[in-house]
Amino acid sequence: MIFEVAQIRIKTGQAAAFEAAYRQAQQQLAAAEGYIAHELRRCLEQPDQYLLLVHWRRLEDHTVGFRGSPHFQEWRRLIGPFFDGPPSVVHYQSLDEHELGAADRAG
Amino acid sequence: MIFEVAQIRIKTGQAAAFEAAYRQAQQQLAAAEGYIAHELRRCLEQPDQYLLLVHWRRLEDHTVGFRGSPHFQEWRRLIGPFFDGPPSVVHYQSLDEHELGAADRAG
Repeated sequence: MIFEVAQIRIKTGQAAAFEAAYRQAQQQLAAAEGYIAHELRRCLEQPDQYLLLVHWRRLEDHTVGFRGSPHFQEWRRLIGPFFDGPPSVVHYQSLDEHELGAADRAG
Repeated sequence: MIFEVAQIRIKTGQAAAFEAAYRQAQQQLAAAEGYIAHELRRCLEQPDQYLLLVHWRRLEDHTVGFRGSPHFQEWRRLIGPFFDGPPSVVHYQSLDEHELGAADRAG
């Protein structure tokens, strides 16, 4: 399983509108092939910054499948206008057995 | 609940030694007051970079309680020598109900 970590900086003062758009957009993410789970978190130290975490079955489910799908176009159409620059996106693989998302994999 | 996100860059070629030290050190983290769960992940795009995610009950459990405790001193004594510069540490709060770590909170 692969863990996508996207750091998203939004335009100042747009948090409520961004979060509303995200709540609508997240169904596009959840509908993608290979999607397992996701969450969005807001930074305490820098309130314009968010962290989007997505569990994918395989790296390509994100980089090829989702990004090449109409789901991605709709996702970005909804939340992209609030971005203050392109998000930083990297992928991580797990080392631990005792994970936050262990319940996801067991299911 | 608060989510600590630490980006750790290690010295090149030290991954195996760092991961072995981490496996020993993580019991210090797990013993801390207010600790809920943690995981360490290695970046695919930048193999010297790791992401440490820690769920804490309250922000102060990390910033005051853990950092002021002997657990932190032992944690840093074990893994600190592998760091290539100070880690970047920020804290996030959740927005979602459908979370990766939802099972942790339910328990």
